[in-house]
Amino acid sequence: MSDLSMNCVPIGFVSSPYKIRGDAPKQGRLTDEVSIITLDPTYMDAAEGLSIGDDLFVICWFDRSDRTVLQSRRFGEEKNPLRGVFSTRSPNRPNPIALTLVKLVHIEGGLLTVKGLEALDQTPVVDIKPYSLSIDTPRND
Amino acid sequence: MSDLSMNCVPIGFVSSPYKIRGDAPKQGRLTDEVSIITLDPTYMDAAEGLSIGDDLFVICWFDRSDRTVLQSRRFGEEKNPLRGVFSTRSPNRPNPIALTLVKLVHIEGGLLTVKGLEALDQTPVVDIKPYSLSIDTPRND
Repeated sequence: MSDLSMNCVPIGFVSSPYKIRGDAPKQGRLTDEVSIITLDPTYMDAAEGLSIGDDLFVICWFDRSDRTVLQSRRFGEEKNPLRGVFSTRSPNRPNPIALTLVKLVHIEGGLLTVKGLEALDQTPVVDIKPYSLSIDTPRND
Repeated sequence: MSDLSMNCVPIGFVSSPYKIRGDAPKQGRLTDEVSIITLDPTYMDAAEGLSIGDDLFVICWFDRSDRTVLQSRRFGEEKNPLRGVFSTRSPNRPNPIALTLVKLVHIEGGLLTVKGLEALDQTPVVDIKPYSLSIDTPRND
Protein backbone atom coordinates (compact mmCIF):
# COMPACT_ATOMS: atom_id res chain seq x y z
CA MET A 1 0.00 0.00 0.00
CA SER A 2 2.79 2.41 0.87
CA ASP A 3 3.88 4.77 -1.87
CA LEU A 4 7.11 6.64 -1.29
CA SER A 5 6.52 9.28 -3.94
CA MET A 6 4.20 12.19 -3.22
CA ASN A 7 3.21 12.83 -6.78
CA CYS A 8 -0.34 14.06 -7.43
CA VAL A 9 -2.37 12.92 -10.39
CA PRO A 10 -4.96 15.28 -11.88
CA ILE A 11 -8.43 13.86 -11.27
CA GLY A 12 -9.84 16.60 -13.48
CA PHE A 13 -9.34 20.12 -14.75
CA VAL A 14 -11.12 23.43 -14.13
CA SER A 15 -12.79 25.39 -16.92
CA SER A 16 -13.27 28.93 -15.68
CA PRO A 17 -13.59 32.47 -17.00
CA TYR A 18 -10.26 33.35 -15.35
CA LYS A 19 -7.46 33.06 -17.88
CA ILE A 20 -4.53 34.77 -16.17
CA ARG A 21 -3.50 35.66 -12.64
CA GLY A 22 -5.25 38.91 -11.80
CA ASP A 23 -8.48 37.74 -13.45
CA ALA A 24 -9.34 35.43 -10.56
CA PRO A 25 -11.05 36.91 -7.52
CA LYS A 26 -9.00 36.58 -4.34
CA GLN A 27 -11.67 34.33 -2.94
CA GLY A 28 -14.15 32.66 -5.25
CA ARG A 29 -17.06 33.22 -2.95
CA LEU A 30 -17.02 36.91 -3.76
CA THR A 31 -18.57 36.09 -7.13
CA ASP A 32 -21.51 34.14 -8.54
CA GLU A 33 -19.44 33.00 -11.52
CA VAL A 34 -19.59 29.26 -12.12
CA SER A 35 -16.73 26.98 -13.07
CA ILE A 36 -16.84 23.50 -14.53
CA ILE A 37 -14.69 20.65 -13.33
CA THR A 38 -14.19 18.06 -16.06
CA LEU A 39 -13.40 14.78 -14.35
CA ASP A 40 -10.91 12.41 -15.89
CA PRO A 41 -12.99 9.37 -16.99
CA THR A 42 -10.61 7.17 -14.96
CA TYR A 43 -12.06 8.65 -11.76
CA MET A 44 -15.77 8.75 -12.61
CA ASP A 45 -16.60 6.00 -10.10
CA ALA A 46 -15.05 8.14 -7.35
CA ALA A 47 -17.68 10.84 -7.97
CA GLU A 48 -20.64 8.56 -7.36
CA GLY A 49 -22.77 9.90 -4.51
CA LEU A 50 -22.18 13.58 -5.22
CA SER A 51 -25.47 15.49 -5.31
CA ILE A 52 -26.60 18.89 -6.48
CA GLY A 53 -26.50 21.31 -3.55
CA ASP A 54 -23.54 19.60 -1.89
CA ASP A 55 -20.95 21.80 -0.24
CA LEU A 56 -17.59 20.48 -1.37
CA PHE A 57 -13.98 21.27 -0.72
CA VAL A 58 -12.24 21.33 -4.06
CA ILE A 59 -8.51 20.84 -3.78
CA CYS A 60 -6.61 22.21 -6.74
CA TRP A 61 -2.98 22.22 -7.69
CA PHE A 62 -2.21 25.86 -8.46
CA ASP A 63 0.28 25.15 -11.22
CA ARG A 64 0.96 28.83 -11.88
CA SER A 65 1.96 29.58 -8.28
CA ASP A 66 5.46 30.39 -7.15
CA ARG A 67 6.61 27.58 -4.89
CA THR A 68 9.68 29.46 -3.67
CA VAL A 69 7.67 32.11 -1.79
CA LEU A 70 7.75 31.55 1.98
CA GLN A 71 6.37 34.89 3.14
CA SER A 72 3.52 36.96 1.85
CA ARG A 73 0.81 39.37 2.92
CA ARG A 74 -2.74 38.48 3.81
CA PHE A 75 -5.42 39.63 1.39
CA GLY A 76 -6.60 43.05 2.55
CA GLU A 77 -3.46 43.63 4.60
CA GLU A 78 -1.18 44.89 1.83
CA LYS A 79 0.32 47.54 4.09
CA ASN A 80 1.10 45.09 6.87
CA PRO A 81 4.36 43.23 7.37
CA LEU A 82 5.13 39.97 5.62
CA ARG A 83 3.80 36.80 7.21
CA GLY A 84 4.72 33.19 6.72
CA VAL A 85 2.56 31.68 3.98
CA PHE A 86 1.32 28.99 6.40
CA SER A 87 -0.52 31.79 8.21
CA THR A 88 -2.05 33.07 4.95
CA ARG A 89 -4.15 31.64 2.13
CA SER A 90 -1.68 32.90 -0.47
CA PRO A 91 -1.60 30.76 -3.66
CA ASN A 92 2.20 30.93 -3.47
CA ARG A 93 3.49 28.27 -1.06
CA PRO A 94 5.85 25.28 -1.04
CA ASN A 95 3.06 22.93 -2.16
CA PRO A 96 0.56 24.95 -4.21
CA ILE A 97 -2.46 23.08 -2.89
CA ALA A 98 -5.53 25.31 -2.88
CA LEU A 99 -8.56 24.64 -0.72
CA THR A 100 -11.86 26.16 -1.81
CA LEU A 101 -15.34 25.48 -0.51
CA VAL A 102 -17.81 25.40 -3.39
CA LYS A 103 -21.45 24.60 -4.00
CA LEU A 104 -22.22 21.89 -6.54
CA VAL A 105 -24.94 23.33 -8.78
CA HIS A 106 -25.10 20.86 -11.67
CA ILE A 107 -23.81 17.43 -12.64
CA GLU A 108 -23.81 16.00 -16.12
CA GLY A 109 -21.71 12.91 -16.64
CA GLY A 110 -18.19 13.88 -15.67
CA LEU A 111 -18.90 17.60 -15.71
CA LEU A 112 -19.37 19.19 -12.29
CA THR A 113 -20.62 22.78 -12.33
CA VAL A 114 -19.65 24.59 -9.15
CA LYS A 115 -20.10 28.02 -7.68
CA GLY A 116 -17.39 29.67 -5.59
CA LEU A 117 -14.20 28.36 -7.16
CA GLU A 118 -11.50 30.94 -7.83
CA ALA A 119 -9.18 28.77 -9.92
CA LEU A 120 -7.65 29.79 -13.22
CA ASP A 121 -8.78 28.06 -16.39
CA GLN A 122 -7.11 24.66 -16.87
CA THR A 123 -6.06 24.34 -13.23
CA PRO A 124 -5.61 20.68 -12.25
CA VAL A 125 -7.98 19.34 -9.58
CA VAL A 126 -6.43 16.78 -7.24
CA ASP A 127 -9.22 16.01 -4.77
CA ILE A 128 -12.85 16.64 -3.89
CA LYS A 129 -14.17 16.16 -0.35
CA PRO A 130 -17.60 16.68 1.16
CA TYR A 131 -17.81 19.53 3.69
CA SER A 132 -18.78 18.26 7.14
CA LEU A 133 -20.13 20.70 9.70
CA SER A 134 -18.98 18.47 12.56
CA ILE A 135 -15.33 18.16 11.54
CA ASP A 136 -14.77 21.36 9.53
CA THR A 137 -15.68 23.90 12.20
CA PRO A 138 -13.33 24.84 15.04
CA ARG A 139 -13.66 23.25 18.45
CA ASN A 140 -14.48 25.59 21.27
CA ASP A 141 -12.18 24.19 23.89
CA MET B 1 6.75 30.21 -12.37
CA SER B 2 4.91 27.31 -13.92
CA ASP B 3 5.89 23.86 -12.74
CA LEU B 4 4.63 20.94 -14.79
CA SER B 5 5.21 18.31 -12.13
CA MET B 6 2.73 17.94 -9.27
CA ASN B 7 5.17 16.54 -6.78
CA CYS B 8 4.66 17.45 -3.12
CA VAL B 9 7.55 18.14 -0.80
CA PRO B 10 7.16 17.37 2.92
CA ILE B 11 7.18 20.62 4.89
CA GLY B 12 7.26 18.58 8.08
CA PHE B 13 6.30 15.30 9.70
CA VAL B 14 3.75 14.30 12.33
CA SER B 15 4.71 12.69 15.63
CA SER B 16 1.63 11.05 17.05
CA PRO B 17 0.62 8.20 19.35
CA TYR B 18 -0.93 6.38 16.38
CA LYS B 19 1.56 3.89 14.97
CA ILE B 20 -0.55 1.75 12.64
CA ARG B 21 -3.85 2.06 10.81
CA GLY B 22 -6.55 1.16 13.30
CA ASP B 23 -4.83 3.14 16.06
CA ALA B 24 -5.92 6.48 14.63
CA PRO B 25 -9.38 7.76 15.47
CA LYS B 26 -11.58 8.17 12.41
CA GLN B 27 -11.68 11.87 13.04
CA GLY B 28 -9.05 13.47 15.24
CA ARG B 29 -11.50 15.74 16.94
CA LEU B 30 -12.96 12.80 18.82
CA THR B 31 -9.90 12.82 21.05
CA ASP B 32 -7.90 15.27 23.16
CA GLU B 33 -4.64 13.58 22.18
CA VAL B 34 -2.03 16.01 20.92
CA SER B 35 0.32 15.52 17.99
CA ILE B 36 3.52 17.37 17.16
CA ILE B 37 4.37 18.64 13.70
CA THR B 38 8.12 18.97 13.27
CA LEU B 39 8.70 21.52 10.53
CA ASP B 40 11.54 21.05 8.10
CA PRO B 41 14.00 23.89 8.91
CA THR B 42 13.84 24.92 5.23
CA TYR B 43 10.26 26.12 5.77
CA MET B 44 10.56 27.82 9.17
CA ASP B 45 10.03 31.28 7.66
CA ALA B 46 6.71 30.09 6.25
CA ALA B 47 5.42 29.47 9.79
CA GLU B 48 5.98 33.04 10.98
CA GLY B 49 2.70 34.56 12.15
CA LEU B 50 1.22 31.35 13.53
CA SER B 51 -0.11 31.88 17.07
CA ILE B 52 -1.23 29.68 19.90
CA GLY B 53 -4.99 29.20 19.71
CA ASP B 54 -5.08 29.38 15.90
CA ASP B 55 -7.47 27.07 14.10
CA LEU B 56 -5.48 25.57 11.25
CA PHE B 57 -6.15 23.22 8.40
CA VAL B 58 -3.32 20.73 8.34
CA ILE B 59 -2.93 19.04 4.98
CA CYS B 60 -1.15 15.72 5.21
CA TRP B 61 -0.07 13.21 2.63
CA PHE B 62 -1.46 9.91 3.88
CA ASP B 63 1.40 7.77 2.64
CA ARG B 64 -0.13 4.56 3.94
CA SER B 65 -3.38 5.00 2.02
CA ASP B 66 -4.46 2.89 -0.91
CA ARG B 67 -4.57 5.16 -3.95
CA THR B 68 -6.37 2.60 -6.12
CA VAL B 69 -9.60 2.74 -4.08
CA LEU B 70 -12.34 4.70 -5.89
CA GLN B 71 -15.33 3.68 -3.78
CA SER B 72 -15.72 3.33 -0.06
CA ARG B 73 -18.21 3.67 2.76
CA ARG B 74 -18.73 6.71 4.92
CA PHE B 75 -17.68 6.44 8.54
CA GLY B 76 -20.68 5.23 10.52
CA GLU B 77 -22.41 3.88 7.42
CA GLU B 78 -20.68 0.53 7.19
CA LYS B 79 -23.92 -1.20 6.23
CA ASN B 80 -24.69 1.26 3.46
CA PRO B 81 -23.75 0.90 -0.19
CA LEU B 82 -20.39 1.92 -1.55
CA ARG B 83 -19.97 5.58 -2.47
CA GLY B 84 -17.41 7.35 -4.58
CA VAL B 85 -14.50 8.46 -2.40
CA PHE B 86 -15.02 12.08 -3.50
CA SER B 87 -18.27 11.98 -1.52
CA THR B 88 -16.49 10.59 1.57
CA ARG B 89 -13.55 11.57 3.76
CA SER B 90 -11.95 8.15 3.34
CA PRO B 91 -8.14 8.20 3.61
CA ASN B 92 -8.05 5.99 0.52
CA ARG B 93 -8.35 8.12 -2.62
CA PRO B 94 -6.44 8.85 -5.83
CA ASN B 95 -4.42 11.60 -4.15
CA PRO B 96 -4.16 10.75 -0.43
CA ILE B 97 -4.41 14.36 0.69
CA ALA B 98 -5.98 14.61 4.14
CA LEU B 99 -7.60 17.75 5.46
CA THR B 100 -7.90 18.13 9.22
CA LEU B 101 -8.86 21.18 11.23
CA VAL B 102 -6.70 21.40 14.35
CA LYS B 103 -6.07 23.81 17.21
CA LEU B 104 -2.52 25.04 17.66
CA VAL B 105 -1.79 24.65 21.37
CA HIS B 106 1.97 25.22 21.59
CA ILE B 107 4.86 26.43 19.45
CA GLU B 108 8.51 25.92 20.21
CA GLY B 109 10.90 26.64 17.38
CA GLY B 110 9.87 24.35 14.55
CA LEU B 111 7.69 22.15 16.75
CA LEU B 112 3.96 22.79 16.47
CA THR B 113 1.81 21.01 19.04
CA VAL B 114 -1.73 20.57 17.78
CA LYS B 115 -4.95 19.07 19.04
CA GLY B 116 -7.35 17.26 16.74
CA LEU B 117 -5.03 15.66 14.19
CA GLU B 118 -5.73 12.03 13.37
CA ALA B 119 -2.59 11.28 11.38
CA LEU B 120 -0.37 8.26 11.88
CA ASP B 121 3.10 8.74 13.32
CA GLN B 122 5.60 9.94 10.68
CA THR B 123 2.93 11.13 8.25
CA PRO B 124 4.29 13.83 5.92
CA VAL B 125 2.69 17.27 6.21
CA VAL B 126 2.41 19.17 2.92
CA ASP B 127 0.60 22.38 3.87
CA ILE B 128 -0.82 24.42 6.75
CA LYS B 129 -3.52 27.03 6.20
CA PRO B 130 -5.35 29.30 8.63
CA TYR B 131 -9.05 28.53 9.02
CA SER B 132 -11.20 31.45 7.91
CA LEU B 133 -14.82 31.63 9.04
CA SER B 134 -15.76 33.75 6.02
CA ILE B 135 -14.42 31.43 3.34
CA ASP B 136 -14.59 28.03 5.03
CA THR B 137 -18.30 27.93 5.81
CA PRO B 138 -20.94 27.15 3.18
CA ARG B 139 -22.82 29.91 1.42
CA ASN B 140 -26.53 29.95 2.00
CA ASP B 141 -27.67 30.75 -1.50
